[in-house]
Amino acid sequence: MDDKNTAPGVPAELLRLRDSIDNLDAALIHILAERFKCTQRVGEIKASSGLPPADPSRETNQITRLKSLAESARLDPVFAEKLLNFIIQEVIRHHEALRRQAE
Amino acid sequence: MDDKNTAPGVPAELLRLRDSIDNLDAALIHILAERFKCTQRVGEIKASSGLPPADPSRETNQITRLKSLAESARLDPVFAEKLLNFIIQEVIRHHEALRRQAE
Repeated sequence: MDDKNTAPGVPAELLRLRDSIDNLDAALIHILAERFKCTQRVGEIKASSGLPPADPSRETNQITRLKSLAESARLDPVFAEKLLNFIIQEVIRHHEALRRQAE
Repeated sequence: MDDKNTAPGVPAELLRLRDSIDNLDAALIHILAERFKCTQRVGEIKASSGLPPADPSRETNQITRLKSLAESARLDPVFAEKLLNFIIQEVIRHHEALRRQAE
């Protein structure tokens, strides 16, 4: 698809690592797609039940749990928290849109 | 660990979806941890080979590929691009730090 395996002057180990990164990115995309399928349905349930789009206590629990998982996996927990917040903000935007449609 | 399975007034389907989201988030964290292991090694190779921390043509290829994967998986490609940029910025910060150490 691209010329990454024939790029001149790029060490072979770097090309192998890029292949692994591309595989991991494909896995990330598919897990995120599945996650948004779940949060889409959560949004529908919240909109039809009159529950608020955001749930601060749930989000606090999620972030605490993920920071602990990140530490075990040797991933920077501050980065994990920033990333989860980034995803949650997108989810809340979706929930608000669903709520406006339901009103 | 938290009270999500006994929360009063929360529909049962929403609780089941939250369990799935928690599982998917754990998968995300572990894939990201593996991805940062790869990019950490990429940073070491770049620093020792004198290659620049960022590689705009590689990043353009990555983003084009991931937007296409996101579309196939019915994930918003604009969100996928924003997320990948967020991750890449973190990786570049790590590479710059490694480069400063190598200098």
